[in-house]
Amino acid sequence: MSAEKVFSGKEVATHNSRKSCWIIVHGKVYDVTEFLDDHPGGSKIILKYAGKDATHEYEPIHPPDAITTNLPIEKHLGSVDLGTVEKVEVQITDAEKARQERMALIPPLEEILNLHDFEAIAKMVMPEKAWAYYSSAADDEITIRENHAAYHRIWFRPRVMRDVSTVDYSTTIFGQKTSMPVYITATALGKLGHKDGELNLTRAAAKHDVVQMIPTLASCGFDEIVDAAVPGQSQWLQLYVNTDRVVTKRIVQHAEERGIKALFITVDAPQLGRREKDMRQKYEAEGPAEQTRAGGDVDRSQGAARAISSFIDPGLSWKDVAWFKSITKMPLILKGVQCWEDALEAYDQGLAGVVLSNHGGRQLDFARSGIEVLVEVVAHLGEKRGLRFPNEKFLLFVDGGVRRATDVLKAVALGATAVGVGRPFLYAFSAYGTEGANRALQIFKDEFEMNMRLLGAPTLKDVVPTMVDASNVHTHIVAVPGDNLYNNNYETMPPARLRELKAKL
Amino acid sequence: MSAEKVFSGKEVATHNSRKSCWIIVHGKVYDVTEFLDDHPGGSKIILKYAGKDATHEYEPIHPPDAITTNLPIEKHLGSVDLGTVEKVEVQITDAEKARQERMALIPPLEEILNLHDFEAIAKMVMPEKAWAYYSSAADDEITIRENHAAYHRIWFRPRVMRDVSTVDYSTTIFGQKTSMPVYITATALGKLGHKDGELNLTRAAAKHDVVQMIPTLASCGFDEIVDAAVPGQSQWLQLYVNTDRVVTKRIVQHAEERGIKALFITVDAPQLGRREKDMRQKYEAEGPAEQTRAGGDVDRSQGAARAISSFIDPGLSWKDVAWFKSITKMPLILKGVQCWEDALEAYDQGLAGVVLSNHGGRQLDFARSGIEVLVEVVAHLGEKRGLRFPNEKFLLFVDGGVRRATDVLKAVALGATAVGVGRPFLYAFSAYGTEGANRALQIFKDEFEMNMRLLGAPTLKDVVPTMVDASNVHTHIVAVPGDNLYNNNYETMPPARLRELKAKL
Amino acid sequence: MSAEKVFSGKEVATHNSRKSCWIIVHGKVYDVTEFLDDHPGGSKIILKYAGKDATHEYEPIHPPDAITTNLPIEKHLGSVDLGTVEKVEVQITDAEKARQERMALIPPLEEILNLHDFEAIAKMVMPEKAWAYYSSAADDEITIRENHAAYHRIWFRPRVMRDVSTVDYSTTIFGQKTSMPVYITATALGKLGHKDGELNLTRAAAKHDVVQMIPTLASCGFDEIVDAAVPGQSQWLQLYVNTDRVVTKRIVQHAEERGIKALFITVDAPQLGRREKDMRQKYEAEGPAEQTRAGGDVDRSQGAARAISSFIDPGLSWKDVAWFKSITKMPLILKGVQCWEDALEAYDQGLAGVVLSNHGGRQLDFARSGIEVLVEVVAHLGEKRGLRFPNEKFLLFVDGGVRRATDVLKAVALGATAVGVGRPFLYAFSAYGTEGANRALQIFKDEFEMNMRLLGAPTLKDVVPTMVDASNVHTHIVAVPGDNLYNNNYETMPPARLRELKAKL
Amino acid sequence: MSAEKVFSGKEVATHNSRKSCWIIVHGKVYDVTEFLDDHPGGSKIILKYAGKDATHEYEPIHPPDAITTNLPIEKHLGSVDLGTVEKVEVQITDAEKARQERMALIPPLEEILNLHDFEAIAKMVMPEKAWAYYSSAADDEITIRENHAAYHRIWFRPRVMRDVSTVDYSTTIFGQKTSMPVYITATALGKLGHKDGELNLTRAAAKHDVVQMIPTLASCGFDEIVDAAVPGQSQWLQLYVNTDRVVTKRIVQHAEERGIKALFITVDAPQLGRREKDMRQKYEAEGPAEQTRAGGDVDRSQGAARAISSFIDPGLSWKDVAWFKSITKMPLILKGVQCWEDALEAYDQGLAGVVLSNHGGRQLDFARSGIEVLVEVVAHLGEKRGLRFPNEKFLLFVDGGVRRATDVLKAVALGATAVGVGRPFLYAFSAYGTEGANRALQIFKDEFEMNMRLLGAPTLKDVVPTMVDASNVHTHIVAVPGDNLYNNNYETMPPARLRELKAKL
Repeated sequence: MSAEKVFSGKEVATHNSRKSCWIIVHGKVYDVTEFLDDHPGGSKIILKYAGKDATHEYEPIHPPDAITTNLPIEKHLGSVDLGTVEKVEVQITDAEKARQERMALIPPLEEILNLHDFEAIAKMVMPEKAWAYYSSAADDEITIRENHAAYHRIWFRPRVMRDVSTVDYSTTIFGQKTSMPVYITATALGKLGHKDGELNLTRAAAKHDVVQMIPTLASCGFDEIVDAAVPGQSQWLQLYVNTDRVVTKRIVQHAEERGIKALFITVDAPQLGRREKDMRQKYEAEGPAEQTRAGGDVDRSQGAARAISSFIDPGLSWKDVAWFKSITKMPLILKGVQCWEDALEAYDQGLAGVVLSNHGGRQLDFARSGIEVLVEVVAHLGEKRGLRFPNEKFLLFVDGGVRRATDVLKAVALGATAVGVGRPFLYAFSAYGTEGANRALQIFKDEFEMNMRLLGAPTLKDVVPTMVDASNVHTHIVAVPGDNLYNNNYETMPPARLRELKAKL
Repeated sequence: MSAEKVFSGKEVATHNSRKSCWIIVHGKVYDVTEFLDDHPGGSKIILKYAGKDATHEYEPIHPPDAITTNLPIEKHLGSVDLGTVEKVEVQITDAEKARQERMALIPPLEEILNLHDFEAIAKMVMPEKAWAYYSSAADDEITIRENHAAYHRIWFRPRVMRDVSTVDYSTTIFGQKTSMPVYITATALGKLGHKDGELNLTRAAAKHDVVQMIPTLASCGFDEIVDAAVPGQSQWLQLYVNTDRVVTKRIVQHAEERGIKALFITVDAPQLGRREKDMRQKYEAEGPAEQTRAGGDVDRSQGAARAISSFIDPGLSWKDVAWFKSITKMPLILKGVQCWEDALEAYDQGLAGVVLSNHGGRQLDFARSGIEVLVEVVAHLGEKRGLRFPNEKFLLFVDGGVRRATDVLKAVALGATAVGVGRPFLYAFSAYGTEGANRALQIFKDEFEMNMRLLGAPTLKDVVPTMVDASNVHTHIVAVPGDNLYNNNYETMPPARLRELKAKL
Repeated sequence: MSAEKVFSGKEVATHNSRKSCWIIVHGKVYDVTEFLDDHPGGSKIILKYAGKDATHEYEPIHPPDAITTNLPIEKHLGSVDLGTVEKVEVQITDAEKARQERMALIPPLEEILNLHDFEAIAKMVMPEKAWAYYSSAADDEITIRENHAAYHRIWFRPRVMRDVSTVDYSTTIFGQKTSMPVYITATALGKLGHKDGELNLTRAAAKHDVVQMIPTLASCGFDEIVDAAVPGQSQWLQLYVNTDRVVTKRIVQHAEERGIKALFITVDAPQLGRREKDMRQKYEAEGPAEQTRAGGDVDRSQGAARAISSFIDPGLSWKDVAWFKSITKMPLILKGVQCWEDALEAYDQGLAGVVLSNHGGRQLDFARSGIEVLVEVVAHLGEKRGLRFPNEKFLLFVDGGVRRATDVLKAVALGATAVGVGRPFLYAFSAYGTEGANRALQIFKDEFEMNMRLLGAPTLKDVVPTMVDASNVHTHIVAVPGDNLYNNNYETMPPARLRELKAKL
Repeated sequence: MSAEKVFSGKEVATHNSRKSCWIIVHGKVYDVTEFLDDHPGGSKIILKYAGKDATHEYEPIHPPDAITTNLPIEKHLGSVDLGTVEKVEVQITDAEKARQERMALIPPLEEILNLHDFEAIAKMVMPEKAWAYYSSAADDEITIRENHAAYHRIWFRPRVMRDVSTVDYSTTIFGQKTSMPVYITATALGKLGHKDGELNLTRAAAKHDVVQMIPTLASCGFDEIVDAAVPGQSQWLQLYVNTDRVVTKRIVQHAEERGIKALFITVDAPQLGRREKDMRQKYEAEGPAEQTRAGGDVDRSQGAARAISSFIDPGLSWKDVAWFKSITKMPLILKGVQCWEDALEAYDQGLAGVVLSNHGGRQLDFARSGIEVLVEVVAHLGEKRGLRFPNEKFLLFVDGGVRRATDVLKAVALGATAVGVGRPFLYAFSAYGTEGANRALQIFKDEFEMNMRLLGAPTLKDVVPTMVDASNVHTHIVAVPGDNLYNNNYETMPPARLRELKAKL
């Protein structure tokens, strides 16, 4: 590798236009002129920083290696003498000021009674674009809500008169003990919500002895996250497979070397979903790019899709399984399986398990919830291969929509080994940092203790299929549209009222 | 044909009363005195133009030949010397002014993220009567909404680990390639929404290589629409069968000569439906006609029904099929079939296919959605005739309620060859003209690419029945009416709140 | 009968207290002292008229013979010289003045597009107590709404390509032609809504050739209603069976003599239901009676129940059928049958038919809708007695919740001979008198013509079971209660907006 | 027992800090220093009364023996000379003043038409913390509402033409007559709502001849409640089993001596549920305790759980049944059974019955309603042991969600002997004292008379399974999440309007 060139801020500053556009990120200089139209976030935002230091803007919304991965090596021009770079003045908008004022008003953590509460507070205090990115989902956002609602179609059949003096909700995954059947699943761009990003989760996972799944698209660097773990702490890696398998091989083998315990290959995202709420927020906040005003159907989303296709491989297929086995000894799990046929194939190909997931509702709208798919997978793999679940040889995980230990216990009763929880932890640390994530895990523990007592199950092995009634889990109904004229005419019976109120009417 | 008489504006102007009422349309003079009470829109609006040039008012809300078709030839009096006709001053109402101001505020097209968005904007910027006409449907508008809702009872079973590097959503209909399994279905009176009317659709269909079905009741003339097509562009014709079969024969054979590729005979409208929202808008905007104030139950709707019955034949029946075969070689498709029995009959009579449709919810309320009927048709024709769908010998189309490529893919998985989309294109061009229609089609393409990837289906042939769970499609449920006293008493758990908010409470 | 005593107004006026309470109604003097505590409406309202002429207050809310029926003959004191009676000044309250002003603003009849519209207007212009009495129903008013909602679980399977040039919706009931399969069912106290009371319905029934069922508790006298009929007009009688069968026999035989065509014996009201909305309106309008303030649980409703039990016989049973057959040749129909077992019994006992009805939801809450019971009755009587419906030997009627001809056609398809409609006609004449009732019937006719065309049924015989899908009619579901914390957190995707609106946000 | 020490108020007042904290309750002095952190209500509220008389605050929210049970005997320091104790000034807050003003405006009892009405009034006039405690339930409060909603999935099949001249709704439970199949079930802390607490219920139960189940956690003393009963009045005892069986034995045998007729052992509360609405009310009203501000996840709820675990035994199991039989001859019933398996076990172990209950929705959210469990229990015990219900050998009770006699009749039809009602009576006496509870019972009686007439059931034996359709009782459905963009676009048909209103639009 040749000696790196060092630029002055002044020189960089001259490349400040669409014709020649350089930017500085973390002290390095990049020529992004040819990349402008491929940038998923549009060219406008880059041009705003043309010739300047974009680190502050870049950092929370990109994985650390986003620019190096996407930009050809010849565009990595060198470094800059930061002392010579003019400071970009960070504007604090009125909206941001108001947000910071709200931040000062958050209630103390002990008033956070459940996971919903984190979201209620985070919604008030997160930057708008962080909220939009975390909370958005695909199309009409039917699936994201169904993920939660599906649990409401499953009811308990608790047992009584069982000694529940002591309750043990710990379990074992891939041969390792964990304090409860919940893991922190992979979610992207943690720094959008809090400056420490994914490290908040690493620390909380350590404290409460649960597993963290590290995302490919973390805001923090992979090694940074691994370094933050305490001795003996389990971490898994979520993997988007790169079209360039050399890159993927490097990532996987590095992860294995660093002690990662399992590899979760994402299979539900050959192309990243459009999340329109997120897009709308961007348009409304930033206005449209100049060039798109001109043409009629300039297709920025296509640009985004293409840009992302450059590193996620839509060609990933069953044929790749053998290759994965050849490059790593880590257990291989497919994340995003959505029907029994694919779960069966994964089993038959000797994989270690599957995550029944629809990517938090962010990919295909009207994909079914993981908990619903679980019921079908358990039934068919039982029938066709004689398997019983939970099963140490082939693990079933579920994620999406979980807010309560009762949700988790339903999944466990139906055969899941553990359940992944994502957004609630993002909301927890966005509002309260690491302590928020800790509190979220503690709430789970409290709820497990309570609810297993009430179920009559002293251990997770006692949480069995007959403890739930899931007979309606496959029911997807919509009420017949209302008869508005009739309903408008119907006058509800008034409730009993205090005399004063009557007088006023 | 004898030499046409030419009137002066002055002479025409003397026939300005209920006793003798002449009007001018496109430079021709018509005696509508005897037609006043049969006019579907009431006599009042005609009398407003008695003795005057009604072209401006007439044009957007009538097919070009409405007056010549409905008025006996002897009432076609001749032409007028337009220079002698007093200009009718077009009043711009306050409402219209406000509308035009809103029109200036529409967001740029790139901010239109989906088909719903066109409707949201069109609702704000369309003339009220255009909105009322396009958006209204039969009776309590249960079916129009069910058309959309039925898709919500169908869920996906996507496959993973399939190579979806390239996705091809093109298909073949009647032996002709088309870019996607979507066609622009026939809808009436396009000029209500935009001055170019149906031509907007012709141009967009050309650009995106999809088929346009030309409506009988287009605002633009049939030849004008055909002339606007580019070489090789496919167009179909939707046909209301005239009681006078000579007229129908002329239309059909003319269409065939002009290169129309298929004839869609509307069978769900022996009488045009009452759309009360549309009627209410008219009454409230214009007030009741004077004469109807007097009597108790003067029946204007009967008048409308009778007027329309004069050209749509309620006597159309299976016996007519042979005659249609005798006058044209175009594939014959019945549009508006609503149960498997009629689909089977159409197949047995050698027709080319059926459109499972309820006329966009505008005819019989509580008719089932096309997508629901599709499931039953595929099942019964499979069982009784051994057919598998999609099938080149007997094509199944579906329309009504479609807003997303996911809707289309559900229909394709269940056996449809293609899906008709109507209102969304009307809204698209009403707000944005041809570019709106283009954008709408591009949105479909983007969604197809994305969603087929997510389904694990590189081509439409890979979109198969097991990719959907339609087990609830026949479920028409209504929740038990609410217990209002109970619900009034129930107090929901308050969410976590910022301290400031609590102080205010 | 001895010569009647004639009192002076002055003498009557001295009996103006709880100790001795006389009132004047229609020129007759009654001693109601002992009846005060049994009065269903409470004693307070009577005491207000003690010693005075109560006719104005009495008339709209009592059947003409209510006082003579309920008061022992010895309390009928004689008549009064009306010239000597002090006029009771009728107070026009502010509420009443406002109501009369609203009455002046009702839209012309031609703007009434459907039966819902009458109710929307009537709600605005009826005296509050009339609205409360007509619109109220039992307990939580679940059944009244279910009556309408049940039709929403039944969907059409229309046929196409059938010659529907002419449509005939007339039918035959008890051997007599009627213009459509709808009859005006019995409802009490017509004068509450309009001064002409039930006569409005008699006139409209004559004009449109439908049957009117005369209620026992009509505001107009039975003979008055019969006298108002035109030659050949069919009328039926609804009967509450009196504990004193002599009275019942007299009523029945008088009806037969007057040409009544069928006797509908009400069997769902051994005790009249509590309609709490009606009760609340009374309490709130009038305040509680003085005496009830004192005690804790004085039970006025018991009083009402007891009072009404004095003329409706809760002991009516199957044993009485033979007696009815012995006193009349009219066809006997049970009104208010609610399960197949009782319909079968009625058939086996040789009755002419049953009305599947829950008394408009006014009796037992959670009684099922007539249309739902129809499905079960047709199935079981078919299976057990080989009957097919509609059936001339044993007629099935349905009432409750009907607002559209489509509702009626569903009932006909499922086996009903005709459908009773009640409240909509009350609302029609309350707002518009006889013309309102006429318009309501005309709307039915227009809808029948339209909808039978769209169903592909030229006559009612063509309206067959396969034309409906009633597979969900027995489904009584309630959604799982909502997760309020989750729903509060969920932020819906904002629709596309005009730029101005965005600026405001 | 040695002579009790007597302190002066002055001496007690010196122990007013976290280091040494004494309080006075009912004239006794307690050292609660070491108990501070274990207090379920937090330490802050105790510290407020450190060194002072806490009786006023203590009384309504604790069972009389709460302090003596939870505090070791050596901390019972002695008594105090009350004359020397400084009076604690009771602050009347603005909220309390407003509440008392509302209390003066409650409508007279005769305007209370149903049980819902009590709740509507109580909500307005109860102290906020009483409302929060009574009305709250577990987690997202799904089960509490489902308890009521489940009755809405059960519909009646009433019979007609049966002699219902006399209606008898009395029944026999454990060999004793009772006026109706309803009992007042156990609910804690009656003095929160009304100063007379549970005695209100004892008096009303006497007047109306129904059974009262005395709660373990009553505000009034057990003997006080028993003493308030009239001769012959039946009372039952609800029992939380103490870890110290000596205590339990003493309670049970004392109850038997006092004439308690049956022992209901609570089995659904090995740990008392978290009721977040109640917790939120407390936090918001009182603010967080000082010490918890410091740490991140101090776990006050754990403290509460531990505190309560000190007297409720989570180790209670089937093995204890024999012991209970050995210490009492009272019929033993398990309260809180939630599946047929446990009901069967109870039967096989020779118990007298079970209450199918989920503790009013206060324990495990998503536990099914008692009425739903009843259906499954009757089916399985019928099938496996040949039992028919109601059954004198093994009684099935149900509680939760009941508001109407129709609810009770559904349970009776399905096999329940009687139904427990709790919260409605709390609301009744909270607003109206004993007279409120009387009125509530009278309303039940009126409704029973009416509804049994309308069902065609002169006695409870005539209320049979075929009188209900419970086929949907197991259906737990959730509608597919709404399509907000579509719904936002849909414009409902406007109702007919008065002209004036139109002008305004």
